[in-house]
Amino acid sequence: MDYSHYQCLEIVVENKLATVTFNRPEQGNSINHQFHIELIQVWQDMMEDGEVNAILLAAKGKYFCVGGDVKGMAERPMGDVRGENDKILWPGLSRHMLNAMLECEKPIVCAIHGDCIGLGATVALFTDITVASETARIADPHVKIGLVAGDGGAVIWPLLVGPNRAKEYLMRGNRLNGREAERIGLVNHAVPADEVPKLAREIAQELADGPTWAIRGTKYSVNKWLKDQLNTILDASTAMEMVTFHTEDHREAVRAFAEKRKPKFVGY
Amino acid sequence: MDYSHYQCLEIVVENKLATVTFNRPEQGNSINHQFHIELIQVWQDMMEDGEVNAILLAAKGKYFCVGGDVKGMAERPMGDVRGENDKILWPGLSRHMLNAMLECEKPIVCAIHGDCIGLGATVALFTDITVASETARIADPHVKIGLVAGDGGAVIWPLLVGPNRAKEYLMRGNRLNGREAERIGLVNHAVPADEVPKLAREIAQELADGPTWAIRGTKYSVNKWLKDQLNTILDASTAMEMVTFHTEDHREAVRAFAEKRKPKFVGY
Amino acid sequence: MDYSHYQCLEIVVENKLATVTFNRPEQGNSINHQFHIELIQVWQDMMEDGEVNAILLAAKGKYFCVGGDVKGMAERPMGDVRGENDKILWPGLSRHMLNAMLECEKPIVCAIHGDCIGLGATVALFTDITVASETARIADPHVKIGLVAGDGGAVIWPLLVGPNRAKEYLMRGNRLNGREAERIGLVNHAVPADEVPKLAREIAQELADGPTWAIRGTKYSVNKWLKDQLNTILDASTAMEMVTFHTEDHREAVRAFAEKRKPKFVGY
Amino acid sequence: MDYSHYQCLEIVVENKLATVTFNRPEQGNSINHQFHIELIQVWQDMMEDGEVNAILLAAKGKYFCVGGDVKGMAERPMGDVRGENDKILWPGLSRHMLNAMLECEKPIVCAIHGDCIGLGATVALFTDITVASETARIADPHVKIGLVAGDGGAVIWPLLVGPNRAKEYLMRGNRLNGREAERIGLVNHAVPADEVPKLAREIAQELADGPTWAIRGTKYSVNKWLKDQLNTILDASTAMEMVTFHTEDHREAVRAFAEKRKPKFVGY
Amino acid sequence: MDYSHYQCLEIVVENKLATVTFNRPEQGNSINHQFHIELIQVWQDMMEDGEVNAILLAAKGKYFCVGGDVKGMAERPMGDVRGENDKILWPGLSRHMLNAMLECEKPIVCAIHGDCIGLGATVALFTDITVASETARIADPHVKIGLVAGDGGAVIWPLLVGPNRAKEYLMRGNRLNGREAERIGLVNHAVPADEVPKLAREIAQELADGPTWAIRGTKYSVNKWLKDQLNTILDASTAMEMVTFHTEDHREAVRAFAEKRKPKFVGY
Amino acid sequence: MDYSHYQCLEIVVENKLATVTFNRPEQGNSINHQFHIELIQVWQDMMEDGEVNAILLAAKGKYFCVGGDVKGMAERPMGDVRGENDKILWPGLSRHMLNAMLECEKPIVCAIHGDCIGLGATVALFTDITVASETARIADPHVKIGLVAGDGGAVIWPLLVGPNRAKEYLMRGNRLNGREAERIGLVNHAVPADEVPKLAREIAQELADGPTWAIRGTKYSVNKWLKDQLNTILDASTAMEMVTFHTEDHREAVRAFAEKRKPKFVGY
Repeated sequence: MDYSHYQCLEIVVENKLATVTFNRPEQGNSINHQFHIELIQVWQDMMEDGEVNAILLAAKGKYFCVGGDVKGMAERPMGDVRGENDKILWPGLSRHMLNAMLECEKPIVCAIHGDCIGLGATVALFTDITVASETARIADPHVKIGLVAGDGGAVIWPLLVGPNRAKEYLMRGNRLNGREAERIGLVNHAVPADEVPKLAREIAQELADGPTWAIRGTKYSVNKWLKDQLNTILDASTAMEMVTFHTEDHREAVRAFAEKRKPKFVGY
Repeated sequence: MDYSHYQCLEIVVENKLATVTFNRPEQGNSINHQFHIELIQVWQDMMEDGEVNAILLAAKGKYFCVGGDVKGMAERPMGDVRGENDKILWPGLSRHMLNAMLECEKPIVCAIHGDCIGLGATVALFTDITVASETARIADPHVKIGLVAGDGGAVIWPLLVGPNRAKEYLMRGNRLNGREAERIGLVNHAVPADEVPKLAREIAQELADGPTWAIRGTKYSVNKWLKDQLNTILDASTAMEMVTFHTEDHREAVRAFAEKRKPKFVGY
Repeated sequence: MDYSHYQCLEIVVENKLATVTFNRPEQGNSINHQFHIELIQVWQDMMEDGEVNAILLAAKGKYFCVGGDVKGMAERPMGDVRGENDKILWPGLSRHMLNAMLECEKPIVCAIHGDCIGLGATVALFTDITVASETARIADPHVKIGLVAGDGGAVIWPLLVGPNRAKEYLMRGNRLNGREAERIGLVNHAVPADEVPKLAREIAQELADGPTWAIRGTKYSVNKWLKDQLNTILDASTAMEMVTFHTEDHREAVRAFAEKRKPKFVGY
Repeated sequence: MDYSHYQCLEIVVENKLATVTFNRPEQGNSINHQFHIELIQVWQDMMEDGEVNAILLAAKGKYFCVGGDVKGMAERPMGDVRGENDKILWPGLSRHMLNAMLECEKPIVCAIHGDCIGLGATVALFTDITVASETARIADPHVKIGLVAGDGGAVIWPLLVGPNRAKEYLMRGNRLNGREAERIGLVNHAVPADEVPKLAREIAQELADGPTWAIRGTKYSVNKWLKDQLNTILDASTAMEMVTFHTEDHREAVRAFAEKRKPKFVGY
Repeated sequence: MDYSHYQCLEIVVENKLATVTFNRPEQGNSINHQFHIELIQVWQDMMEDGEVNAILLAAKGKYFCVGGDVKGMAERPMGDVRGENDKILWPGLSRHMLNAMLECEKPIVCAIHGDCIGLGATVALFTDITVASETARIADPHVKIGLVAGDGGAVIWPLLVGPNRAKEYLMRGNRLNGREAERIGLVNHAVPADEVPKLAREIAQELADGPTWAIRGTKYSVNKWLKDQLNTILDASTAMEMVTFHTEDHREAVRAFAEKRKPKFVGY
Repeated sequence: MDYSHYQCLEIVVENKLATVTFNRPEQGNSINHQFHIELIQVWQDMMEDGEVNAILLAAKGKYFCVGGDVKGMAERPMGDVRGENDKILWPGLSRHMLNAMLECEKPIVCAIHGDCIGLGATVALFTDITVASETARIADPHVKIGLVAGDGGAVIWPLLVGPNRAKEYLMRGNRLNGREAERIGLVNHAVPADEVPKLAREIAQELADGPTWAIRGTKYSVNKWLKDQLNTILDASTAMEMVTFHTEDHREAVRAFAEKRKPKFVGY
């Protein structure tokens, strides 16, 4: 299969293992519109590629992913969710991505070697097995820019760490490191940063070499819970996130971020 | 908004933060009928009060809450759930309270500075973020007085610590301290008793100062899971609790409690 | 009640406590067809026996249970799920067993004194309270013989340790010891191997002596979540497991197991 | 298989079709405790009998079933749900019966040749295909004797006729005939009374002769919806029914029934 | 209980029956903000009023209810959902109303004597038993003014007439009369217009005179399905409705309505 | 957008309306592997095509669709679900198609001008609004060839006609005509055959001209129920269908079909 048209992802297939790498290191692998679109397409391509039995998700550069492009939002309001020519904000992009991930029956291992923020964290946590650096910071800081944590965080965090811990991390938008993340069950493994790639690859290769349909059916069975939870929560949360895009508090947060000052919220 | 008619709760609003305090310290903040009624009303008032952006739930005296008034039950059988003039035991009170809590979109932080038992534990665990003293004891001991843990414990404990740990704590009615509670995910934070008020207030004030609708929508999204679970479990558990009010084992347990001896159960 | 017709289980009732013991120590308590049938019947008998108020599940010999009889599979393909005279593989056996366990309102405590594998692990984890040896190894290695972890593992592991940890253990089929199992919430208690019987019995006797209906109603309420999850996941996972019985990868895995070599999977 | 120990049911197996007949015609096939127990056991026996591929449920005498034995209730309060030696009313009997029906994968056709009331209606509507006499009257009149329609009516009526029509029939306890029942979807077929046995038997025999596992898997798939609904509703409704057994209104209704007068309800 | 402060509703309690009447006949009982607020409060008052055992919902004037005040929307954009001083559109009003209706355990009969549109239809269909005039027109025409049918229609119509018929009525916003509504199961009874009040009152009084808790528990049991459905659908649909308030198509539809011309939609 | 690569579908876009036509009239529009693949792809293309606001699904020739290619199955066992090079039967194809249909937010109207069988019926019933010829025959006859009705029938039939009517049509595989289908709610409209195209097109064009996002959000909201049902049922039913592909009864049914004789089933 030819993956050369991907711009934000680098995809290499070898020994039945596809390595999918975030490839915008200069931008901290921040997720812009093109990146988001590729994050929908890639899981469908993975399903269709007969050479692929398992997937390793990794990232280039210092960070795993710094999340959405907040600076860009100041110049292009709602630019992060609204495409170039879209004339209305409508929930859908995140749903398509998460649906594609959950429909992908092939196992996905994620190597979180560095900071993993926002939509980047959602993607990482929706993979099957996560290997994190002990010092990598993980967070879903939607509220910090005045938005509902609507694009998947409210679905997956509660399943991994329980509803109350999830509510704290999502309502405050604060960070935890990989070691703490492993302790409370947010990630599968926490190891020193330089051991992340090796451990993640070993697990992924083991799965690529394993009995194909036994592994797929097992993964798919567990994913039925995630689908149920997604149907209960995601549509409401993304639509409410759309509503917060129209608030003054969101605009103030984006301005404050650009001006490197604390925002002053007005409550609407 | 005027909160002066509250008898068991003290409510103070300042800087967009409402501090709601259990105010029956001499009775260990045990929850009688009036208290229960106020615990339904307060969350609706919180929602309507335009000055309130976040809520801090705390308690006066040595204990956070010792639960229902068991001693009173011996004199007034079923007195804890049945109002003065009620002629039938019917599930509803706890449902109204928990519904009101889950419908309250504003974030609630709970400062568990001392022992937190029974219905007190249910209320605390249904808030969003809990800060507990390392030595505070937490338990839902319905079974100790021969009753099904029907008023919410069977809903929230399993979500926080998994079904098997929940079944043990609820079927045995035994206690765990704040430190252990944090380790297994029952509470968000465990700190020395004297640091509880400060940390809880800091988090609550941070939320009160944050972007209103981003926080509310995020909280509300996660709560959809709790509502689903509540609809599956609560009505059955409260109705079964009603049934156990008619058992000899319940009456014996209440008598034994009053007489400070071990109960002898007969199995009906 | 007369339990003398049980061949694989030994059942003793005393002081309102039934002790149900896996009784095939020479075979590592591996679960053959007869054993499976008894594991359906026993929970119905437990419900009907008026002398029984609580159940202690334990096992004789070195292992708690080594799982299904893989060696037998090589000689008698699909022999583990297909009865002697069955002419079609059809999901049902595991469902009947798990339904019977979840319908049993009496509390069940499980003493995992040694290794606890596959279907043995599923049975153990579907009890209410588990006491494990710190060094006992727990695993659901269906994938190791090329099968979907379809007979309950995909239902209960995610509820106890979250979906991502569950996916790792089930997709890799690897083992964890009791100490680690307790840390992540898979079992309730981990103690030295020789303390397992005593602690498990103490808890079970405490429940046997407790208020009957309060305990049953409490257990039953929490189980409603498990039933919901079972209805969402189990039928799909067992039927997919049936499908994998028809794969070359399963046959190769069974051969390799018998020949004590690494399997070479072909992907169909 | 030997069915001679059944007292209230007559069971004949021929040509892969089991005909299960209500056999208390003098009592209008009213369901007493023994009858209820047999209505749990029979579905398990049907599953195990290798000679049976489909089931025809029918009844002797003028009525299909007049429901529970209300007259008996006046002499033996709560006698209808409480066994001879039970010392506590506890929900369970109806659940075990409905679970057994839903777990029975073999298709069940019901011949409703005459009036079909209360628990009789619940059993009939939980079969798969119903053939009713145009003039047979169908009702679930729990409320007429002051009880919640808790033993399955609140589960199955809404699925067949929508929640609002179901609420009217269940809250008023009024009757509809077979013709109207067919029009609104409560039964599959309405034909003249004397054609009921023939049509029902034809359909049942057709299913008995059909492809076994295709039919079972199809039935079982649809039943997953009923199981979901049952888990949501039944436990709450049966437990609330237990609570109404303790009301004065129930006792008054039973007395009024025995004295053939209109009851005067007091509201507790 | 004193109901004199209600402005849009007239409430009379007699013989345990509360008659709640829409009381803005000159405005076709169109639902403005004050009306909406009263439609939340009234169900809570009904629950608390010890004199009330059943509720009859009716309306004065020619129409049952013409829905929201579309003309007002042109002058006061989003005025129908946004209160006078609200600075942000946020879903919640409809949820609070529907929650209050579903939590009201007392039976509600609705007399739809004339046209019943939009939010008026939602309220009517969320009651328990509906009696409609054969010629009354029923519709949920949100889409006609460019809005998602988000305030409850997408929850209740599918349950009453199946998802496909519901999608047609809701996506086209077209009307059906009472006779057709009865045929497809949307309402319980269709009778000539002048018989509506009598039949509705008879049913309501019958329920008011019936066994209180038997009726409440029965209603409540069925409502658990509606709650489940509401949690799955409502939050998403109301939040998406909010998003459509920001569309040009909505503004155009409102203008066209005021100018009595066909709207020209642009697709954003 | 270029649709010229479609082989089994003809796609024309005009006035914001896409007309998608089954284009294998000589084969009765029977669905082979290529057709199935296109029925997955087309809904994704519909979503992405900015020129399309609504979709009309129709068919050329005498029949709407005669279902899968049973004759082909005799020559190429399992050929209908297994692709040319697939080496294992695995559920997925139907899921991908139904997911794509449910994710398509644009309204779909279906013109069932002639017989509509099996997978053809599933596709038709999963559209939003169906217009059927009064004499067209509709059926899902999986059981007639010894297979579980696993590819969606067990999901959608019960939602449209209730579980019991659905079980009869699916377990017997018998046909009903459009008039009867409308009466029981299976289709939205039944009209004479020659009026089907006009009415279907009128409705579809009306939706294409309507307010885009209001319609999409309304449709999507109702679809959340279908998704919930699909997650509960489909995976189990498709996997059980796979299992029945391995039965002798399936092979016999296919042979009997080719030989135009009645099958003789053996029960395995």
